[in-house]
Amino acid sequence: MSTSSAAPAAKPPMRDALVEAAFRLFVERGYDRTTVDDIVALAGVGRRSFFRYFPSKEDVVFPDHERCLADMTAFLAAGDGTGEPVERVCDAARLVLRMYAENPAFSVRRYRLTKQVPGLRAYELSVVRRYERALAGYLRERYAGRPDGTLRADVIAAAVVAAHNNALRSWLRSDGAGDADAAVDRALGCVRAAFAEPGGGAADRPRVTPVTPVRSEGEDVIVVVARRDAPLWRVVREVEAVLGRP
Amino acid sequence: MSTSSAAPAAKPPMRDALVEAAFRLFVERGYDRTTVDDIVALAGVGRRSFFRYFPSKEDVVFPDHERCLADMTAFLAAGDGTGEPVERVCDAARLVLRMYAENPAFSVRRYRLTKQVPGLRAYELSVVRRYERALAGYLRERYAGRPDGTLRADVIAAAVVAAHNNALRSWLRSDGAGDADAAVDRALGCVRAAFAEPGGGAADRPRVTPVTPVRSEGEDVIVVVARRDAPLWRVVREVEAVLGRP
Repeated sequence: MSTSSAAPAAKPPMRDALVEAAFRLFVERGYDRTTVDDIVALAGVGRRSFFRYFPSKEDVVFPDHERCLADMTAFLAAGDGTGEPVERVCDAARLVLRMYAENPAFSVRRYRLTKQVPGLRAYELSVVRRYERALAGYLRERYAGRPDGTLRADVIAAAVVAAHNNALRSWLRSDGAGDADAAVDRALGCVRAAFAEPGGGAADRPRVTPVTPVRSEGEDVIVVVARRDAPLWRVVREVEAVLGRP
Repeated sequence: MSTSSAAPAAKPPMRDALVEAAFRLFVERGYDRTTVDDIVALAGVGRRSFFRYFPSKEDVVFPDHERCLADMTAFLAAGDGTGEPVERVCDAARLVLRMYAENPAFSVRRYRLTKQVPGLRAYELSVVRRYERALAGYLRERYAGRPDGTLRADVIAAAVVAAHNNALRSWLRSDGAGDADAAVDRALGCVRAAFAEPGGGAADRPRVTPVTPVRSEGEDVIVVVARRDAPLWRVVREVEAVLGRP
């Protein structure tokens, strides 16, 4: 059912025919009661053809994740190590959305199927975890010089995945109606607001003394004076310090 | 191997004996080559006893997660709906650490086993996901009045789990040496700094006009004047607005 194939429209390639046959059977008789033999019989191909494309029956449900994971890895590796790292992983997460949005009808059909089959939910969890690890791996490299580097990397990667999936699931629940891109952008904005460091990237180090916190006399008001190009997180840290929090 | 049992020390209860027998066999002959029959034979009990305690072979590897999930759910339900929600889920996550830290030797042994067995990693993922959902469910209720409530809930829950697991894994990799509590506190501090709203809780609504951003003439400096009791996130939002970011 992938629409990204360049094959002639008249005859979809074998891989797509297998996916189409599999989903028809999953819907008709249930996922668990459909065998690989059933799928290849309906698609009119041999078992070996199935396993050439898909290691297992689960994989036919998620036929494009391997390609998408490879795209994400390549995208992250293609960076020159500058630019704000959180922005970069947000852009990487958008590749996953694009895969789902390529074919909304198929994505919605799969979403409904996955909700009904515990084995597929488990498989999906493992795929999500692989995306998360790809993002975390990139961030760990970018934050290698920081004492909290791996922690920060893992937390941001998990937050990006959770934000992305929150928006993706809303879109799937609405049967693919609405603007998925806008929804994911909004969701990722929550992570960027929490973690992106304006002016971050490059050396990923704070600029010198960008913030001067001042306590007022009466202690009821704080005044923060910051250079306009100060990283936001640095401003926050200084405000925390002057407030005595967290 | 749970040490939390009140049974006499001379004879561990049957459940603990099953866990002990299972781990001995997993280490000796490998997880996949050990059957439930092998485990009950070594423990000297019948198959029905095994399944009374554990739905499957995987469950014997993680004998305390069900109890811990129940504890976490009860802890979250016991709150009166006031207090900072992020602080509350951080405290809930500490219950998981406490379970691991109750018996460091067993936790380290399981960590090594899980790393070697893909099926156990998949099982662990599903358990982690259940903790995450418990935390997110609580936060969704607390943030029910906010337009970004479910998004914020999901992102924070994922971040808390990632921070907790980052510290937990470091501790397990060090064979349970060092202060696990301090490590997890440090890790959760990263999430609290990003998401906790000092003064949050209660109505979870921002106080009125706590921040006054001021642009300086030259545009190179920003000045923020805030009431001392202003929620930090509110200060951040105002600083973002005056900076024109994100």
